[in-house]
Amino acid sequence: MRNKKKKSMPKAVVLLSGGLDSSTCLYFAKRKGFVPECLIFDYNQRHKKEVEAAKRLCRYAGCGFKVLRINLPWKGSSLLDERTGILKRPKTPTYGSAIPSTYVPGRNIIFLSYALSYAETIGAEAIFIGANAIDYSGYPDCRPEFYRSFQETASCGTKAGVEGKKIKICAPLIKKTKAQIIRLGKKLGAPFQMTWSCYVGGKSPCGKCDSCYFRAKGFRQAGIKDPALKG
Amino acid sequence: MRNKKKKSMPKAVVLLSGGLDSSTCLYFAKRKGFVPECLIFDYNQRHKKEVEAAKRLCRYAGCGFKVLRINLPWKGSSLLDERTGILKRPKTPTYGSAIPSTYVPGRNIIFLSYALSYAETIGAEAIFIGANAIDYSGYPDCRPEFYRSFQETASCGTKAGVEGKKIKICAPLIKKTKAQIIRLGKKLGAPFQMTWSCYVGGKSPCGKCDSCYFRAKGFRQAGIKDPALKG
Repeated sequence: MRNKKKKSMPKAVVLLSGGLDSSTCLYFAKRKGFVPECLIFDYNQRHKKEVEAAKRLCRYAGCGFKVLRINLPWKGSSLLDERTGILKRPKTPTYGSAIPSTYVPGRNIIFLSYALSYAETIGAEAIFIGANAIDYSGYPDCRPEFYRSFQETASCGTKAGVEGKKIKICAPLIKKTKAQIIRLGKKLGAPFQMTWSCYVGGKSPCGKCDSCYFRAKGFRQAGIKDPALKG
Repeated sequence: MRNKKKKSMPKAVVLLSGGLDSSTCLYFAKRKGFVPECLIFDYNQRHKKEVEAAKRLCRYAGCGFKVLRINLPWKGSSLLDERTGILKRPKTPTYGSAIPSTYVPGRNIIFLSYALSYAETIGAEAIFIGANAIDYSGYPDCRPEFYRSFQETASCGTKAGVEGKKIKICAPLIKKTKAQIIRLGKKLGAPFQMTWSCYVGGKSPCGKCDSCYFRAKGFRQAGIKDPALKG
């Protein structure tokens, strides 16, 4: 894209966790002609690896970012509470029936609400989130109906919405399998070697948590080698 | 209420700003038989007077509370930005046409999202917010349609909602005039002498900002003397 076009390009707020899905989403937004402004959340996850990965991704992609520190003074998720076992992966991850311990109450609605506030402030036309309902852990706030409903709430509750300047909530990966996301991200040039997915946050991915499990399965099904794995 | 009943009483998360509406809302939730757990937001308002008022109110009402510090790294509102004039009150406050400079993009959706996270974590059955669409400043996120839509989003996006344990979003003051709210609060025993409404935050209320204007008008119309005013 030529630089002289840049001025008229619309802005989009992209929620970036530093994993496969959100990095694919970032490159998807770029391909669609948006200037991405990323929001990275530091919400007392067990480790800072994903925040660091997200920052590196932004610098690599050449886009602006803000890191928001969110301090939830309550737990309610094994992702936030050291005392809870994080490796008890439900054997049949299906939403509605077996929501895993890593579910953080209200996480995506909090993230989206901040994104909405930011989007309205900077005049962005869209919000991108890499949520995914298939091949994932069964979080209720990763389902299409949640995003459809949030779109309506966002339009009702903002000055932009009331004035007819709808901020579009985009979850382009919502119905894709992990393998499809990986193929798409590769095609778009997303730097998967910089991404971090593991919930545990050791020197290298644990290979046992939900997130490692779905990542490995996705790369296997896509027939692509995970560039973040050494050796 | 006798103590032995307390164990079976349902919990409710109450958003408390320290003003007239939220304190009336707190006493309304108590009267409805809920055990209130208050959330107070410190979001870099121009002054801390309302946060202090909210904490005093909780202690007086004998209910639990948490203060959440929210750091929005963007402005977009005269309530957050010292450089913007706060006293330019639109002469005809009507929503959709004249949204005032004190509107904070996404504020109520951020507050409600935190409340939802907290409610789900502690097993609360309801969230109370003192939002009010009449006799107020025309914020889009104070209108009934916003709360109806948020209810749907909340039910879609939480484990509680998916499992059929709906967390009810209650905005009992939404269609009341300020005078009606003041009469209701007085009847319920809300300690208005402890509340703080002024946006400016001097030693005593400025009497000129939007919030002072509607407060004074409300007391006048209710035929009640404002107990927070000296003299």
